[in-house]
Amino acid sequence: MTTPPRYPEITYSITVRAEYPNRPGMLGTIGIQVGAVGGDMGAVDLVYSSRDLIVRDFTINARDTQHAQEIVKAIKGVPGVKVLQVSDPVFLAHLGGKIAIHSKVPVQTRTDLAKVYTPGVARVSLAIREDPKAVWTLTSKANTVAIVTDGSRVLGLGDVGPAAALPVMEGKALLFKELGGVDAWPLCLQTREAEDFVHIVKAVSTGFGGINLEDIATPRCFDIEDRLKEELDIPVIHDDQHATAVAILAGLLNALRLVQKKLDEVRIVVCGVGAAGSACIRLLVRAGARHIIPYDKEGILHRGMLTPDTHRVRRWVIEHTNPDNLQGDLMKAVEGADVFIGLSAPGVLTVEHLKRMAPKPIVFALANPIPEIFPEEAAPYASVIATGRSDYPNQINNALVFPGMFRGVLDVRARQITEEMKLAAAEALASVIPPRELNAEYIIPSLFNKQVVRAVAKAVGQAAYRVGVAQRSRRRYHFTRV
Amino acid sequence: MTTPPRYPEITYSITVRAEYPNRPGMLGTIGIQVGAVGGDMGAVDLVYSSRDLIVRDFTINARDTQHAQEIVKAIKGVPGVKVLQVSDPVFLAHLGGKIAIHSKVPVQTRTDLAKVYTPGVARVSLAIREDPKAVWTLTSKANTVAIVTDGSRVLGLGDVGPAAALPVMEGKALLFKELGGVDAWPLCLQTREAEDFVHIVKAVSTGFGGINLEDIATPRCFDIEDRLKEELDIPVIHDDQHATAVAILAGLLNALRLVQKKLDEVRIVVCGVGAAGSACIRLLVRAGARHIIPYDKEGILHRGMLTPDTHRVRRWVIEHTNPDNLQGDLMKAVEGADVFIGLSAPGVLTVEHLKRMAPKPIVFALANPIPEIFPEEAAPYASVIATGRSDYPNQINNALVFPGMFRGVLDVRARQITEEMKLAAAEALASVIPPRELNAEYIIPSLFNKQVVRAVAKAVGQAAYRVGVAQRSRRRYHFTRV
Repeated sequence: MTTPPRYPEITYSITVRAEYPNRPGMLGTIGIQVGAVGGDMGAVDLVYSSRDLIVRDFTINARDTQHAQEIVKAIKGVPGVKVLQVSDPVFLAHLGGKIAIHSKVPVQTRTDLAKVYTPGVARVSLAIREDPKAVWTLTSKANTVAIVTDGSRVLGLGDVGPAAALPVMEGKALLFKELGGVDAWPLCLQTREAEDFVHIVKAVSTGFGGINLEDIATPRCFDIEDRLKEELDIPVIHDDQHATAVAILAGLLNALRLVQKKLDEVRIVVCGVGAAGSACIRLLVRAGARHIIPYDKEGILHRGMLTPDTHRVRRWVIEHTNPDNLQGDLMKAVEGADVFIGLSAPGVLTVEHLKRMAPKPIVFALANPIPEIFPEEAAPYASVIATGRSDYPNQINNALVFPGMFRGVLDVRARQITEEMKLAAAEALASVIPPRELNAEYIIPSLFNKQVVRAVAKAVGQAAYRVGVAQRSRRRYHFTRV
Repeated sequence: MTTPPRYPEITYSITVRAEYPNRPGMLGTIGIQVGAVGGDMGAVDLVYSSRDLIVRDFTINARDTQHAQEIVKAIKGVPGVKVLQVSDPVFLAHLGGKIAIHSKVPVQTRTDLAKVYTPGVARVSLAIREDPKAVWTLTSKANTVAIVTDGSRVLGLGDVGPAAALPVMEGKALLFKELGGVDAWPLCLQTREAEDFVHIVKAVSTGFGGINLEDIATPRCFDIEDRLKEELDIPVIHDDQHATAVAILAGLLNALRLVQKKLDEVRIVVCGVGAAGSACIRLLVRAGARHIIPYDKEGILHRGMLTPDTHRVRRWVIEHTNPDNLQGDLMKAVEGADVFIGLSAPGVLTVEHLKRMAPKPIVFALANPIPEIFPEEAAPYASVIATGRSDYPNQINNALVFPGMFRGVLDVRARQITEEMKLAAAEALASVIPPRELNAEYIIPSLFNKQVVRAVAKAVGQAAYRVGVAQRSRRRYHFTRV
């Protein structure tokens, strides 16, 4: 594997406030020095200017923190320049947190108070006690989701714990609100046991219309999700598994259209059979895929690996895939495969692997931030390439799914999220790209495409009525505009 | 006891949409009919008007639901009038809930996304893992409070359960936000055991800078509060106890100034020794009161009532009050008393009781919505009268306290709320009324007075530094403008 140079990304962007003599050529010199060390100059703002002095803010993208330090050093090295301050837009955006409460009704007079608090609220309280269903209309429950984690497997960082998981959950809450119009509140739990996690979520569930589980380690995440689905009458979904699976299936449906192959005929290697990989396999099977080869650190998964201790999720995967009972390494797995779906680790896929695949191979290299193979390397051999990154075409991201998925289930007040609803979501997401626009660099829409949430929500809502889990009478259903 | 007629209140307000022929005198006739059955006409809005027809919305205050029905019947009785719809502003204000999430940072481009979510957020997450204190600056924790209840003692309604408690908690969240600028999220717990309640709150506490316990039955509320204060390093307060106690002490300090008596000399009867009564007694003792006579259903509390099973909170009350070891009924308790503080039940105080009190008695009749004695009855005998109602002068309400209290503790990042801080809050609240404005009908400011939160927050913050529970360096402290 050769990793192409990493391009500077906003992740490591800094803002440098510099003071220098007001004379021609200074700005140019600074720009040249920043460029010379590989810094990518963004916004340049004027802070102060007099006859003698100028103060400017330079926002510069760097590769990483060390690179950022080199850039600052380069600026300091320009004669006459004094660096006053270095700040980091990512941290600035997080200062004081990213979410707040918004009051939907005014409280400015005694009359307001009497309506929304005592004494008026007492009648609302009694109305709910008499008719428990009224909690859906007379409180915020119907539009509110809890984002729950124990911080045991956060992004690619691993087990950072509940406090360090909080900014990630707040980011998720932002996306829920901005993309789906859903009010989501993060709950980062200080617990490490599945049963305790379930107990706590059940106890706090009263005020929520849905539960979005997030960043929980395997195999605990499977048990927590299954137990909560059994116990609660509101939808529960482990986003990392199912929203990811839906986004992958959507991308795959479009990619297969492009290369004119059929889902039930292609050979699909799923590399990495953790939470997302297992859910992906389950949804692919449900969608009609018949030749899936699951592969992870132990090699190709096959029936010979089953023991009485095999976790039920892994057991299901092994029992429903690899019909020829293949065994061996990744080279063996990709032999003649039409599709590679990577949910594993940086650089595990090489050009040699690609050469063994069937003609017109589809490669989803979704390990993040460093994919199984970089698109530049794969391009000569693959017909369609997708990654999890925003700086390449075809970003497969679960944020394409969860805002619309929850918008849909909340709008129809679905009791649960079934496989049919996930399939409908995947098909709807794929269909956002009109056939005439479909091409190898555009198999999945942008998550800022307004049609994404609308299409997914509508499809999920309709599927919920079809399978009978929608609790809102169809007459009263309307899709919430977002 | 004689209860004066109950005046129509907004609590039972309705909006009647009526259609009638467009001819002179109709509006007047409707108004007369509404008045004839005791309805209090508020806003009259035009909905539609043509040469022949008029449709109007009449908002009318009624005494209760039955009265509202009489009013609708009276309107229907006017010849030519057709009632199209009857709606209820209290329920309308609750439709869809009262709170939502607000995004503090935009998410409209990939650059935004990279800052607030992946990949940028990963660095913020790691920064918190390396320095756990950073969770206070890089997340919403520092301005966020959990309002936690089990719904076991909601308002005057009793045990309505967690779902029916939700609209009340949302109302509280509104007040937190609108008055104190605090982001408070309601958690209505499905649990009935103190230890389990404590366990759950501990587990979810990561994302919160404080815990406001609410509407929990005694004696569980005492145990839950004490255990959580021990276990957590963020402030925990049972609002019904302590915020109420602070508001009472503030009102009493001003009332005593008016009648020129001293707290350490007056005899104070506290009628009703539940959660609020016990906290009130504790704070009065701390403030210097030396002659408190606690009274409840069992009569005057005295040392002879102590058994090994007496709850520790009640034991404390008995051991620190009633120095003369009085025994007997309320008539005995109020004999020569300067102050009556009622936190008990409608109508328990009579004119006969008032006649036995010392000269210039102070009466706080705080049972809600029907006080221990109505101000009209008490007026001839009492020098200062306060209630818990908004429709009489001197409303003693815990909403005067909790927004400023939490504003203060969050601003200085206090680890806990001590008795000193409560005393400081009471003194600050009392001092909002300038001495020259103080009079028998104005001993406590309105909760819409902007100075209330500022004064309470500042006093609480300063007291936190004084007693050493503030975790924020004094240099960086600034009071959040609300």
